[in-house]
Amino acid sequence: MQNWNDIQKAIAKAQKILIFTHVNMDGDAAGSSCALCRSLRAMGKDCFILLEDDCPRYLQFLDDGGMFIKQAPWTPDLSIAVDCGDDSRIERRKDVFHAAPVTMCIDHHMKSGPFAQLEAIDPAAPAAGSLVFELLQAMNAPIDKDAAEALYVAIATDTGSFKHGNTTAEAHLDAAKLYGYGIDAVKLNNFVYGSYPLPQLKLEAMAVERVQLFADGKAAISWSTQDDLKRFGALDEHTECCIDRIRSIEGVEAAAFLKEKADGRIKVSLRSKSYADVNAVARQFDGGGHLRASGCTFYCSIEEALEQIRPALEASVAP
Amino acid sequence: MQNWNDIQKAIAKAQKILIFTHVNMDGDAAGSSCALCRSLRAMGKDCFILLEDDCPRYLQFLDDGGMFIKQAPWTPDLSIAVDCGDDSRIERRKDVFHAAPVTMCIDHHMKSGPFAQLEAIDPAAPAAGSLVFELLQAMNAPIDKDAAEALYVAIATDTGSFKHGNTTAEAHLDAAKLYGYGIDAVKLNNFVYGSYPLPQLKLEAMAVERVQLFADGKAAISWSTQDDLKRFGALDEHTECCIDRIRSIEGVEAAAFLKEKADGRIKVSLRSKSYADVNAVARQFDGGGHLRASGCTFYCSIEEALEQIRPALEASVAP
Repeated sequence: MQNWNDIQKAIAKAQKILIFTHVNMDGDAAGSSCALCRSLRAMGKDCFILLEDDCPRYLQFLDDGGMFIKQAPWTPDLSIAVDCGDDSRIERRKDVFHAAPVTMCIDHHMKSGPFAQLEAIDPAAPAAGSLVFELLQAMNAPIDKDAAEALYVAIATDTGSFKHGNTTAEAHLDAAKLYGYGIDAVKLNNFVYGSYPLPQLKLEAMAVERVQLFADGKAAISWSTQDDLKRFGALDEHTECCIDRIRSIEGVEAAAFLKEKADGRIKVSLRSKSYADVNAVARQFDGGGHLRASGCTFYCSIEEALEQIRPALEASVAP
Repeated sequence: MQNWNDIQKAIAKAQKILIFTHVNMDGDAAGSSCALCRSLRAMGKDCFILLEDDCPRYLQFLDDGGMFIKQAPWTPDLSIAVDCGDDSRIERRKDVFHAAPVTMCIDHHMKSGPFAQLEAIDPAAPAAGSLVFELLQAMNAPIDKDAAEALYVAIATDTGSFKHGNTTAEAHLDAAKLYGYGIDAVKLNNFVYGSYPLPQLKLEAMAVERVQLFADGKAAISWSTQDDLKRFGALDEHTECCIDRIRSIEGVEAAAFLKEKADGRIKVSLRSKSYADVNAVARQFDGGGHLRASGCTFYCSIEEALEQIRPALEASVAP
């Protein structure tokens, strides 16, 4: 539990408040900022969320009150950053952020150093949304159904539907409490998980079609080229889930997915299920990451990269 | 909350207990029966789970204590059915079930009528596992980490990772409590969701590759033939998730997936996202179901079935 005293006092004093969250918004960024903005407005504050890029389509339903803006209407009394590890994540908005006499940061990322005057940082929190929920409760702020739904989206998406390693008992307790505000979790999950761009699904289909299994089916490799992306009208980001699809093949312990980038580099995602050390695989090629999720980069053709990664991945699943 | 008094007394009196759950076990059947068996054994009871078909591979890790058996070692003092709507779900084991002087049923399905002497039925419970958890707590039964993990699997799978309509605040409260027993939820989710048979993934890939979009991308149709199943070494059950994959295409409101069966019938699954009435579509062809999930059957070629279903689906998404 954070000590919210100083933060509460600063919010009580401010009238014009701008909320900032990171570029390339995800569910936690959009959900935690929208919930905070709604509740601060309900407390009588003038409040907006200042963006510099567009909210992704699947999250736009969270803003039904004109909360997202791209130009600050005034110099704020208070700037609040949510879900931002450091102020490079607010990029071109830094000047507006720091123009406020009081700055504040509410976040669950590990940080290199402070960038706001008042900080509530808890790396053990499952999502920025759970910290915002804690603050709103501490302030006895009004939380309407829409704000509760935004908090649910924040927590549910950042924990991968309560499946990822950052899921805690508190994440489930928060969700249970949010049901009490009348949220429609089925609708929210349909909005957030029910839709994938067709080019992404086509790329994932292709990744499965061409997968190569070896080491008795314990290792799997697949790849995408720039030509594949063109063929499906896909963006680079549409390749992101291919590695999960490949790893999910029954019997596969370790998986690699190779992506040819526009500049010719080959970016490799490595994942394992339960025992293979893919960090060791990545380190052989000057990459790194975690035991079960790592990556590395090759500066050669995709065929040459495949030839190099294959024996290393195979060795990682050896008994 | 159930009144567990009579059930507690019957368990206290019994020494030899057999647990029964439905054929084609799912996560709730396996999880709730394993948790109950472990805790009853820890209370000093002789207890087994009597099966008539094999536990699916992805759930076998739940039985690490020889709990699953296929022959009753004795006539039980007490038979307990979990997650069984009626005794047809215990099929060839009915005689053994009813041979016990006391029979009991713990379930969350709507029931046609009683089949056991003592029943604890709650259709509002998210999973049979949540009722078993309630009983174990009411009895102050020992719940070790493995039993808690089995209960988590029961609740997490039956609620579709806390996304389906049967998810309640209580489901999240149960999950939060189960974290207190030291469960490794990441490991469990990897076991349960991390693995799909390659033929299933290949069928889903094919379904996406050949999808036809019409009505401005609001309707989607795809299909599989017996030849497709043979080509991928797939079973009929591997087609089940194809419809979800097709519906998940961004912009699609209503989707149909046509499956050619071994006997030549064409089974059609129909799904919608938010407004299309696919029950009305199904009813045009003597099928039915719900507003957002329905089905019907054609007795013709897959090409003819496609021609008939297409205009009906298109009409369902008309503004």
